[in-house]
Amino acid sequence: MFKRLVLPAALLAISAQVQADEGQWQPYQLPQLKAELKKIGISIPAEKLADLSKHPMSAIVSTGGCSASFVSNEGLIVTNHHCAYDAIQRNSSAKKNYINDGFLAKTRAEELPAGESTRIYITDKVDNVTKEITQGLGANLSGRERREQIQSRIKKLIADCEQDKAYRCSVPSFHRGLEYYRIRQMMIRDVRLVYAPPDMIGNYGGDIDNFEWPRHTGDFSFIRAYVGKDGRPADPSPDNVPYKSKDFLVVSAEGIKNGDPILLAGYPGRTSRYKLPSEIRFARDTDYPVRAAEMLADIATIEAATKGNADDEVRYASVVKGINNRLKKTQGLIDGFARKDIAAIKDGQDAAFRNWLIGSSKTPAEAKGLLAKLDAIIAEDMALSQEELAYGVATNSDLFNSARALYRLAIEKEKPNAQRESGYQERDLAFIKGRLSRLEQSFVSKVDQARLQAALQRYAKMAKHPQGLDALLPSVEAAADLYQKTQLTDTAKRLAWMEKDRAAFQQSDDAFIQLALKLHDIGMSLENRRKEVDGQLDFIIPQYMEAVIAWKKSEGKPVYPDANSTLRVTYGTVGSYSPRDGVTKGPFTTVEGIAEKHTGKDPFIAPSNLLAAIREQRYGVFKDPILGTVPVDFLTSADTTGGNSGSAVMNKRGELIGLNFDSTYESITKDWYFDPKITRAIHMDIRYMLWVMKEVDHADNILKEMTIKYPRGVSNKK
Amino acid sequence: MFKRLVLPAALLAISAQVQADEGQWQPYQLPQLKAELKKIGISIPAEKLADLSKHPMSAIVSTGGCSASFVSNEGLIVTNHHCAYDAIQRNSSAKKNYINDGFLAKTRAEELPAGESTRIYITDKVDNVTKEITQGLGANLSGRERREQIQSRIKKLIADCEQDKAYRCSVPSFHRGLEYYRIRQMMIRDVRLVYAPPDMIGNYGGDIDNFEWPRHTGDFSFIRAYVGKDGRPADPSPDNVPYKSKDFLVVSAEGIKNGDPILLAGYPGRTSRYKLPSEIRFARDTDYPVRAAEMLADIATIEAATKGNADDEVRYASVVKGINNRLKKTQGLIDGFARKDIAAIKDGQDAAFRNWLIGSSKTPAEAKGLLAKLDAIIAEDMALSQEELAYGVATNSDLFNSARALYRLAIEKEKPNAQRESGYQERDLAFIKGRLSRLEQSFVSKVDQARLQAALQRYAKMAKHPQGLDALLPSVEAAADLYQKTQLTDTAKRLAWMEKDRAAFQQSDDAFIQLALKLHDIGMSLENRRKEVDGQLDFIIPQYMEAVIAWKKSEGKPVYPDANSTLRVTYGTVGSYSPRDGVTKGPFTTVEGIAEKHTGKDPFIAPSNLLAAIREQRYGVFKDPILGTVPVDFLTSADTTGGNSGSAVMNKRGELIGLNFDSTYESITKDWYFDPKITRAIHMDIRYMLWVMKEVDHADNILKEMTIKYPRGVSNKK
Repeated sequence: MFKRLVLPAALLAISAQVQADEGQWQPYQLPQLKAELKKIGISIPAEKLADLSKHPMSAIVSTGGCSASFVSNEGLIVTNHHCAYDAIQRNSSAKKNYINDGFLAKTRAEELPAGESTRIYITDKVDNVTKEITQGLGANLSGRERREQIQSRIKKLIADCEQDKAYRCSVPSFHRGLEYYRIRQMMIRDVRLVYAPPDMIGNYGGDIDNFEWPRHTGDFSFIRAYVGKDGRPADPSPDNVPYKSKDFLVVSAEGIKNGDPILLAGYPGRTSRYKLPSEIRFARDTDYPVRAAEMLADIATIEAATKGNADDEVRYASVVKGINNRLKKTQGLIDGFARKDIAAIKDGQDAAFRNWLIGSSKTPAEAKGLLAKLDAIIAEDMALSQEELAYGVATNSDLFNSARALYRLAIEKEKPNAQRESGYQERDLAFIKGRLSRLEQSFVSKVDQARLQAALQRYAKMAKHPQGLDALLPSVEAAADLYQKTQLTDTAKRLAWMEKDRAAFQQSDDAFIQLALKLHDIGMSLENRRKEVDGQLDFIIPQYMEAVIAWKKSEGKPVYPDANSTLRVTYGTVGSYSPRDGVTKGPFTTVEGIAEKHTGKDPFIAPSNLLAAIREQRYGVFKDPILGTVPVDFLTSADTTGGNSGSAVMNKRGELIGLNFDSTYESITKDWYFDPKITRAIHMDIRYMLWVMKEVDHADNILKEMTIKYPRGVSNKK
Repeated sequence: MFKRLVLPAALLAISAQVQADEGQWQPYQLPQLKAELKKIGISIPAEKLADLSKHPMSAIVSTGGCSASFVSNEGLIVTNHHCAYDAIQRNSSAKKNYINDGFLAKTRAEELPAGESTRIYITDKVDNVTKEITQGLGANLSGRERREQIQSRIKKLIADCEQDKAYRCSVPSFHRGLEYYRIRQMMIRDVRLVYAPPDMIGNYGGDIDNFEWPRHTGDFSFIRAYVGKDGRPADPSPDNVPYKSKDFLVVSAEGIKNGDPILLAGYPGRTSRYKLPSEIRFARDTDYPVRAAEMLADIATIEAATKGNADDEVRYASVVKGINNRLKKTQGLIDGFARKDIAAIKDGQDAAFRNWLIGSSKTPAEAKGLLAKLDAIIAEDMALSQEELAYGVATNSDLFNSARALYRLAIEKEKPNAQRESGYQERDLAFIKGRLSRLEQSFVSKVDQARLQAALQRYAKMAKHPQGLDALLPSVEAAADLYQKTQLTDTAKRLAWMEKDRAAFQQSDDAFIQLALKLHDIGMSLENRRKEVDGQLDFIIPQYMEAVIAWKKSEGKPVYPDANSTLRVTYGTVGSYSPRDGVTKGPFTTVEGIAEKHTGKDPFIAPSNLLAAIREQRYGVFKDPILGTVPVDFLTSADTTGGNSGSAVMNKRGELIGLNFDSTYESITKDWYFDPKITRAIHMDIRYMLWVMKEVDHADNILKEMTIKYPRGVSNKK
């Protein structure tokens, strides 16, 4: 173990001497960054930012996949339009199309149920449980044993925490297993849609502008958290009352300008900043190109299968949108890796690290041995992931994946709840049910069939196949028959399988159930191999990360854990960037740019009342004194990633001045390597939101509910 | 006549109260702009700028199509690489490819003849001859009579002026015939190539970057003017000596920065700033779209006909380049008109003008009558130009056009020299010979045939045909036969026709000579109709322009004549522009951008020694203190057009700090309407030239010959 390498104790504390902007910091780390925060002009004390029970962090929430924040003491929450999209869509119909027309509840009574998939999570407690998770796990365990012991301890800690049904708990690992924290979040499950602008404001520019600058998207929506009369989370009910959000963000219409500091708080999903050069090369040369080709082919299949049928096209619109979004990100990574040789940069860092480690270790041979072990298990990890990807391609069918999850659930349900695989415990049932139900909105049997058949053909050409899988897969022709012999297309029947036991599955003549049974062993074998590899990684990576942290610290480099969907704070400054010599992008766009982009063709159809307000220059108090007009979006150097959508962007006093919603195309590689020269997050300027609310949508009731600081002493109540 | 409208006398003087940047000023106008020049920071006195015999204007020269300037007292001239391209090409061969490798004469003896088509014109005298041209031309003349009288008077004035063979004279009209000036230029006909960087510096980015920003072109070359031992222009001879250019520009390596003022002097070709809205609509909706389609089709024909034959491709490379350049400009005009409704802007101005004119005239009915006449003759002009265009398409053959010019020459030669059509006088013979000779470098019979045949097919579909032409044109099949029955493909035989008389043409059985005879009457008819229209324009437009000038003056708007290839001065400031909301372009590019663009594929193959100098950051004294590296190109708001290529860009003291070579794509419509928000000229920073000379090409002898002001007291002689 690296711990036995006897590194100087002083190097081991996770501390920080940072370079500007890079870093998705755990709130507790912020006091260590005091000097840096002060330097860029943040006036809110770092200690206050570190306290989750205090403003402003107590106002920062998660929606599950997005970030959001309270903006009134009555549970009013602002987040991105795309984060509230499900809620808008489920309330829409041909008659009242809230996607196209927007939605505004003029009273509480008019607020609409956001649906089962929209929840609000308020992080209220974070405990370091590293000891509880790792203590006594000897070096002699197999990977799978280690993995299962860790998972078992995690489940126990979660179960203890979730004794109080108001909470949802998790025990994510930090620094790839070096530390574990138990996160307790109050989970509010009665959420309602309050206000969403029309799609052509909230998603102006659509997929074409996704990941691009200049951007003119008003990516905002309002929802509200409701709780029981006792103030505790409750199932949706007309009797529920707005959640009393004692802390909420004051909205500042005073504006920001180029060079101003900002704070950004939210729930970034996943980054890979500490990966080895070999992992970057694998991603760059093997994994991403294959995934990009797969996504392209899958989209082409869906488009061919839905073409000419408007209803089918609508059903798959959000599926295609989702794949397109991942594809653009993957392509951005491929392009970014081609533009800048990040692997070579990491080679240099890795070599420096290895030299330092061997040089500073009292047992260099052991250090070398462990580096060799690290490389070996990483190689295994990459090889296995190719088989996992191939398995995923061979089973590219929503029906198959439903059958597979249902059968797995039946098997797991045979065990006591605590021993079940995570994802199949009682606490997970509502989510499984949600997924199985939602399928009906985005599924057409013949399209699913086309996807599976096309994927089977692509699978046949892939380099690595899981052993034994080929013999069990249906032929392309036989795949067509499956769809004749299944009832899983029926939502009620699909859901009914949640209650059935293993025997029922074994006796079923449903073709997809049968296929799920047939492939079960291969799937389990991949899963077990994954556990073995992950268990070994659980053992070796923490040792590696500990040494990396010590080394980085010795070089005065920032040390923050990779993003893992937990609450983080990042900071930066408003600023432009140069995508190429002689060209500068940002930092602001203006409402005039909306008119400039308006072609009348989707996705550039600005609402006519918006265009009129622009034409008439009805800027009101939202006119920026430097720009001479209303700003729309802006760029900062803040360190964000997926999951940060909807994150509060705050000024130096912790007042809301923007909503994060995207990054520039050139920034996409930041998940692997943060290049301060080109990395820019895209935020919506809160003045644009307020201007739309006032001049376009007349959302006066919402404006009135918020506490808004206007420039030059304009009253909130006007 | 408008003159009889009795406009207040004070309004009639051509004077100026300007808005910044717009304006291609006649040097004599500059003292009227004193306040404006001072305001932007120009310290060189306006009176000095107005005096063509004084520095710096005495250092500004023309090469015929381009602008240039003396940079030593030994006749050394700097201009654009693309302006010296002919000279470089004619000295190149497969063995010594100066286009690819560049050329540097280390001694005077090594300097190479630039060829007959490269001449140097030094403007030394400008006389207002309006009275001589227009006096006594009554309103009762027909258009053609007026035209012919004017042309006859012009020819007389030119002939007088060219008594001294050292000079070339011209009498261009200003304000579309309101004024005429006789321009006397010393014409130096022994010009030699001194130094040209490799094409991949001088034309880096090629056609792809043409009209684009960001730009990284080192568009410079050096030539030298030689004269006889008596100091007067002489035919090329080894006995000639360098021209003693007493005034030359000091080169400043001190640099400029964003916001600095600049002066630009050169020979802009043609602008249309005072055209009517109807003329803009005709150009936008009819003329340009047809021309663009014609050019596209012609290029496609050439490419198909030369494909697979490297030699043919090379022969037509510069033809295609030329068409492409015009096409990109035409497309830029079409795009620009689509982006901004310039016709609507002009509608507003035109209506205001007409109201003002009628309102301020003492004889409103007469004013209305003359406006009606103006509109009528403009309509005729546009209709005729469609027929002229169609005629050009139907005769799209280099052989036909050679035959046509030769036959016309034979006819004109029957007259005394002074009475010949201009373009066919003794003074023009050398130019005609040059054109007929140069054809051999860019002509292949089968390609010419393909162009003619394709053009005949396109002509058949055109809206307006000149009357009678269709019956005389060969069919597509018959056009092929022409090429079997001609000897004009042979340069010696082609040139021999210059000496033959009309009878020889009539007796010839050369198919193209015969076709030229056959189409002669139709061509003459178009020409005579053109004279009639132009003569009527010569009568009406000066009255219109006089009124426009009076009106503009009453509004405090700038009044400068449209460009007409005469010496002009413009000024502006270094600055960026925003092509669209949220994006800023310029004002500088840097050498790092060259490496960024370098793909190793034409036109982005930077020389390896250049890349090495960049990589090693050998910036020397040419490092800009703000950019931290060597600038390459920059943008200013100066008012330029084609013909300004190679123009000296000077700092406030009149020192050379750049060479003009292009405009941005968004600026192309400036020929019709100067939009200060987006109009930017592209200049090469002289520091880049000096840096290439010193660090890459080691052109130490040229550096030594120039007078260079280095920053921070660095010596010139180092």
